[in-house]
Formats: sequence, C-alpha cells, structure tokens
Amino acid sequence: MLTSQLVPAVLKEYGDLTRHAMNEYLPVGSRFAETVADYPRRGGKMMRPSLCLATARAFGAPLTEAVRSALVIELLHNALLIHDDIQDESEERRGRPALHVEHGIPLALHAGDTLALLALRPLIDNSSEIGMSLALRVLEETDHMAAVSAEGQAMELGWIWDNITALTEDAYLEMVLKKTCWLATIYPLRVGALIATRDTVDLDPFIRFGFFLGAAFQIHDDVLNLVGEHEKYGKELNGDLWEGKRTLMLIKLFREATVDERLRLNEILAKKRESRTADEVSWMRERMDAYGCIEQAQQIARGLAGAALHEFSLAYGGLPPSRDRQFLEEIIPWVFERRA
Amino acid sequence: MLTSQLVPAVLKEYGDLTRHAMNEYLPVGSRFAETVADYPRRGGKMMRPSLCLATARAFGAPLTEAVRSALVIELLHNALLIHDDIQDESEERRGRPALHVEHGIPLALHAGDTLALLALRPLIDNSSEIGMSLALRVLEETDHMAAVSAEGQAMELGWIWDNITALTEDAYLEMVLKKTCWLATIYPLRVGALIATRDTVDLDPFIRFGFFLGAAFQIHDDVLNLVGEHEKYGKELNGDLWEGKRTLMLIKLFREATVDERLRLNEILAKKRESRTADEVSWMRERMDAYGCIEQAQQIARGLAGAALHEFSLAYGGLPPSRDRQFLEEIIPWVFERRA
Repeated sequence: MLTSQLVPAVLKEYGDLTRHAMNEYLPVGSRFAETVADYPRRGGKMMRPSLCLATARAFGAPLTEAVRSALVIELLHNALLIHDDIQDESEERRGRPALHVEHGIPLALHAGDTLALLALRPLIDNSSEIGMSLALRVLEETDHMAAVSAEGQAMELGWIWDNITALTEDAYLEMVLKKTCWLATIYPLRVGALIATRDTVDLDPFIRFGFFLGAAFQIHDDVLNLVGEHEKYGKELNGDLWEGKRTLMLIKLFREATVDERLRLNEILAKKRESRTADEVSWMRERMDAYGCIEQAQQIARGLAGAALHEFSLAYGGLPPSRDRQFLEEIIPWVFERRA
Repeated sequence: MLTSQLVPAVLKEYGDLTRHAMNEYLPVGSRFAETVADYPRRGGKMMRPSLCLATARAFGAPLTEAVRSALVIELLHNALLIHDDIQDESEERRGRPALHVEHGIPLALHAGDTLALLALRPLIDNSSEIGMSLALRVLEETDHMAAVSAEGQAMELGWIWDNITALTEDAYLEMVLKKTCWLATIYPLRVGALIATRDTVDLDPFIRFGFFLGAAFQIHDDVLNLVGEHEKYGKELNGDLWEGKRTLMLIKLFREATVDERLRLNEILAKKRESRTADEVSWMRERMDAYGCIEQAQQIARGLAGAALHEFSLAYGGLPPSRDRQFLEEIIPWVFERRA
C-alpha cells in the first residue's frame, strides 16, 4: 500500500491551525512560561487534534466550532507526556532532552500540572461558540476520557511496579484501549462528531473505530522504539526495554521464551531501570528478533487496521465523500506505515 | 483571646459533610484507588471547604447548593499536597509517610493527577443543582484560581531552584497570595458567595478578606513547622529548613544576619536537600531564635489578622447575624492560635 500524500498534508494544515489556536492559551513572559510551552512548541505529529477537526468537518461543522476542543486535546496530550517522561525516566522527547532532564523533576512536574489545567479555559470558552449545553457535553466527554486514561495509566504503572510479566494479549489491549486510545483517538473522534451533529449521532461506533486505530498506532509506536531511526523518532531507541515497558513484543517474548530465558527476563525486569545493563537490554532485543516478536506484533497491528477500516465504513460510510472523510480513511494505513 | 469553641465544631460538621460527599467521587476497588483516596482519608483541618459552606450559608443558600464545590476544593487541595510533597521531598504528611515515600514517585505523581481530574465531575454535576450558567461561572472561578495558584507555585519553586535569597516581605506576600490564598481562602469564599447570590454580589471584597486570612494562616503554618508538636503537626519538624523553603522567618533571618552569616546561609541553601547536614539545619534554626525571626513573623501574622477582621466586616457586615457568619469571624484568630 502506498503511503497517502493526503495524510501529511492534512496533519500539517490542521496541526498548524491547532498550534495557532493553542498559542493564545499558552503562557508567555517568564522562564517558567517557556518551560510550560516547551513540549507543545517542539512540534509533534498532531494526529489527535486532526482526528477531531476532520471528523467535525466530515459531519458538516465549520472548523471554528471544533478548534478549541482540538487544542484541548493537544494540551492534555503534552501534559501527559511531561508526566509520563518523569514516570518512565525517559531521556529524550521529540529530539531533545526530556523536560525533567533539563529542569529537574519539581519544575517539570509543575509544568505538566500547569499545562493540564490550561485545558480548562478553552473548554469554558467553548460555550460562546457552541452554546452552554454542548460545551457541558464536551466537558462530560473530557471527564470520562480523563478518568479512563488515568485508569489505563495506573494499569501500566502497576505492571512495572509489581513486575507483572505473565500478561495476555487481551490484558495488553485493554490497557491500550484505556491508556492510549481514549485520548489519542476515541475522544477526538467523539468530540468532533458530538459538536458537528449537536449531540444527535450515536457515539458508540467511534469507540470501536478509535480502539482499532489507536491500538494499531500504539503497537507501531512501540515497534519504532526498537527499530526506528533515532533522528526521526526523537526518543532514545530501546528506551522501552530500559524502562521495562510491557509492550506487545515483550509479552510475546515471554510467551515464546524457554523456562531459563523467562527466569532471566524476570530477573532483569525486577531491577530498577538504572540497574539494568546494556548487555541485558541487548540480550532482550536479540531474543525478540530470534523469536520474531516484532513481526508478530506488526501482524496484529495490521489485523487491527483491517478492523478499523470496517468500523470506519460503519461510522463514516453514510456521509458524503469529502477530503476529511478520505483523510480519516487513509490515516488507517498511515498509523502503521509511518517512520516517525 | 480565648480560642473559639465554635470553630472546631463547625470544622467538624462541615468537614464531615464534605468528606461524605467527596466519598462518592473517590475511586474504590483497586490498590491504585486506595492510593488515590489515601491523603483525603487521612483527614485534615477541612478549613477550605468549611469557608465555602459557611459563606454560602451566611448568604442564605442551602448547603446542598455548595457542597459539590466544597468537595472540589478538598480534592484539589489534596492533589496539590501529593505533588508538593514530591517537589519538596517531604517525608511525612498528616502523621504518616508522604505518598511518594510509600509508593514511589511514578505512582504518587499519577495519584495526584487522578485526584485533580476527579474534581471535574462534581463541577459538571453542579449544573443539575444550580443550573448551567452558574455551574459555568464556578468553572470560570476554578480556572482562574488554578492559573493563579500555578503561578504562585512556579514563583516558590523558582526561588528554591535558582537559590534566590534576597527576597522582600512584599515578594513573599505576593507569592503567598497566589500560591496559598487563592485555593485556601479566596476561591472558597468567592464560590460560596457566588452560588448563594446567583452571581449578584461583588466578589472583590473576598479577595482582600481571603488574602489577609490566608497569609496569616500560611505564616502560622510555617511557624508550626519550626515550633509545633510533631504529633499534632503531622509533618517532620524543621522540614522547611531542610527543604530551603522561603518562609517569612528565613527572609527575616537574611535581613538580620551579619555578612558572614549571610554567606554561610547562601552556601547551605545552594546545596541540594540531601547534602544539607543536621548541624546546618540546627544552626539556621538557632540563628532564627537569636534574631527573633519567629516572633517577628508572628507579629506580622497578627497584623494580617487585624486587617482580615476589618475586611470581614466589609464583606459580611451587612448580613444578618448567624452561626456561619460568627464562624467566619472567629476563624480569624483561630488561624494563628491553632496548634495543628
């Protein structure tokens, strides 16, 4: 399948629009303000706000009605990245040192808090554009998404904290549904459709479409952490292995490994990040290759993308053809073909 | 002045009411849920929600109209405590180990995030009790308070991070206005009055009353950190000195100290917390006594309380006498007489 030209074009266009709108809410004029605005200004794929804007447009709304909600998604995404990077002890983000590496944990933690609460203002301002009742519905969606995301994050942190290794693919997908998909895909799609239809369309199909799309996205993201080009990827390669992140590849490795290998894996993962050695990380990486774990994960991502295509036709099939509808269809192969 | 019996009685009554209402919003059923609910369940003075409920009642509203906003204050306060304790490397909170000491930074950070976002649901639910328009006004107040608090927190963290020591009393009071007073006093008072009067009363007087009351509260809190009884206070004594917190007493000490002493203070404060020694902390504490810094700070707290009394009469003087109005008057001496 050839990678779509439309997807990067729309991501650029809607990304710029969102960034422009977001700038009005970002603080300026102090060194701390610069810290808060740092991650958002480093850029990013802008997939999340673009999914929201494209869905709103595909359902017939003008961009002005959805852009504040789109920027909220990007603010919350960046706030989560700052706190995630602290929790995972990540070293790099978008090609530069992670925020806590540059400024220490106290200031980075506070920058994440500040960025998250900045999302409240545009959600309130929504009422002047789409009315109080619809603005409150978007707030309800935000509340639900945040609660589910927090639950997913707690699952993943708990697995690492308790060194849980006997995980099934189902448990993994449930965690990804909660931790990744609600904020990355489901919430953006639902809010776009909610606003455009004045809360008259059934929002359930967007859970299914968003889940398949978001899970394929997450698996591919974890694959890039192992095999990506460092400059394009913008994070330290193999960072997930250092961190002990429960990726689909690691779960596959546990299933395929011999008893002895499993014991060694358990020992390595029981250590703290800083106690793991480069040899241990290389060994895990090499065992993943030996058992074809990456290929297995990619296969699953492709299967999820196929399911996403089906759900796309159910959620958007009744709409008139449009550039936005086409973008939403073409982003499905993009999520697992992208190199960054 | 005799300590009021009314203040503890109202704090108990409104505290119980708030805690009961808050319980409906706290997660249950998982180990992580227990972590999230840990600080709120440890108890606390419940001054913040009580200020909100008493003001709402003094202005004639039933408690049911304000209780959701009161519990929001308590949720946000506890969320901030969790993150503050990480940032300050505090060891104890409410007589037990701080959350990150018990569960590590990643889980504690996430528990704070989760607790903060739990505040969104009651703010949305407000609309069923007080209507959409007033609920949105409370959201606006929340947004403003959060933005100002974040600014105050950034000021204080910045002073420690950059080892700023030449601070004036004015700079200190500006930081306390932002960091402490908006969440602890101003926001609770304003929201109570806003709800009870259907947004028809001038909310500015509550900024002044809340500032004087909250600043006296904060100064006394910092004094208790130095001279309190450990069991009642619930935090490690002298923790602020270990942390290098810019309290009024430390600012006073800098002003009174000789050139040599100031150099030594600068050196001690330039170190990281873990590099400070017990001797250095004892020396700072002893110099504070030698220069009467604690008495000077207490004098200022008493002056602020006097100003609060005046502002109280402007903000509440026109209301009919009531138990709630009396509580709000008697809490003024309470803030700097309390022993915990």
